[in-house]
Amino acid sequence: MNDAARRAQSLGYQLAIAALAALAFIFLASRRAENRLPERAEDQIRTLLSSQVDAWNRGDLDVFMAGYWNSDELLFYSGGTITKGWKPTLERYRKRYQSEGKEMGRLTFADIHVEVLSNEVALVRGRWLLALKASNPDGLFTLKMVRFANGWRCVYDHTSASEPK
Amino acid sequence: MNDAARRAQSLGYQLAIAALAALAFIFLASRRAENRLPERAEDQIRTLLSSQVDAWNRGDLDVFMAGYWNSDELLFYSGGTITKGWKPTLERYRKRYQSEGKEMGRLTFADIHVEVLSNEVALVRGRWLLALKASNPDGLFTLKMVRFANGWRCVYDHTSASEPK
Repeated sequence: MNDAARRAQSLGYQLAIAALAALAFIFLASRRAENRLPERAEDQIRTLLSSQVDAWNRGDLDVFMAGYWNSDELLFYSGGTITKGWKPTLERYRKRYQSEGKEMGRLTFADIHVEVLSNEVALVRGRWLLALKASNPDGLFTLKMVRFANGWRCVYDHTSASEPK
Repeated sequence: MNDAARRAQSLGYQLAIAALAALAFIFLASRRAENRLPERAEDQIRTLLSSQVDAWNRGDLDVFMAGYWNSDELLFYSGGTITKGWKPTLERYRKRYQSEGKEMGRLTFADIHVEVLSNEVALVRGRWLLALKASNPDGLFTLKMVRFANGWRCVYDHTSASEPK
């Protein structure tokens, strides 16, 4: 094979190697990006939950509800009752905590664990405590969080309460 | 450029194209495989849940508990109580349903939704109904299922009950 042939062939090999190297780089870069995501996602989710607790304790149900997916598909499981949709969930809170003779009290979250399952989905579990004038109900919650263009939102909330003491 | 050079260069190009084609094929094949997984996973999970309900209704807590991750890290959230570990969870069931004067009753699951999030993780939500002699408690559950070498297991169970009627 003459020099022209060798140069040409090696040019071809170089193309093959460059193609593989580029794909390898893209793969590794995306892996690195994913590895950084969970921490960022957990921070974002914890910030959202804190903002919801602050809103609750200001009596601001609208900002509290902003942490939930504003969709007719939002699911709120509580005790034995399923509430479907953002508006019915807001109405449920209004009825239970803002209607005649009701109070919102002081809400605290504890033992919060955030498990980021992917770039778009996370599970949150924790304990809620509500300080009311007459009683201090508490219980547990499980949240499915989904990342939307406008940030993380709770799309599914399963809440349970301790038996009244 | 002479014929030898042209042949050599085209061989190089062919190598580059073959490398890209192979990677594209692997990518698409894995995508197709993933698309088939959710249905299979949902079937496997529903079969496991049915076997647990059947075991419960036979009074066989051991087979019922085989659906749970046999680990000290198993989490069982119920009402306001967190039970950690497979053995403590089994003991809790024994105490509540098999101790003096207790009965296991007849268990039914309803409105089960299985959401397969990945090859290894799924979320299940549904309603449980228990027919006892004196009462018929019911409520909701959320399960996080994980696929292990020996099949799907529940690693996290959040159960809540309706207020007694």
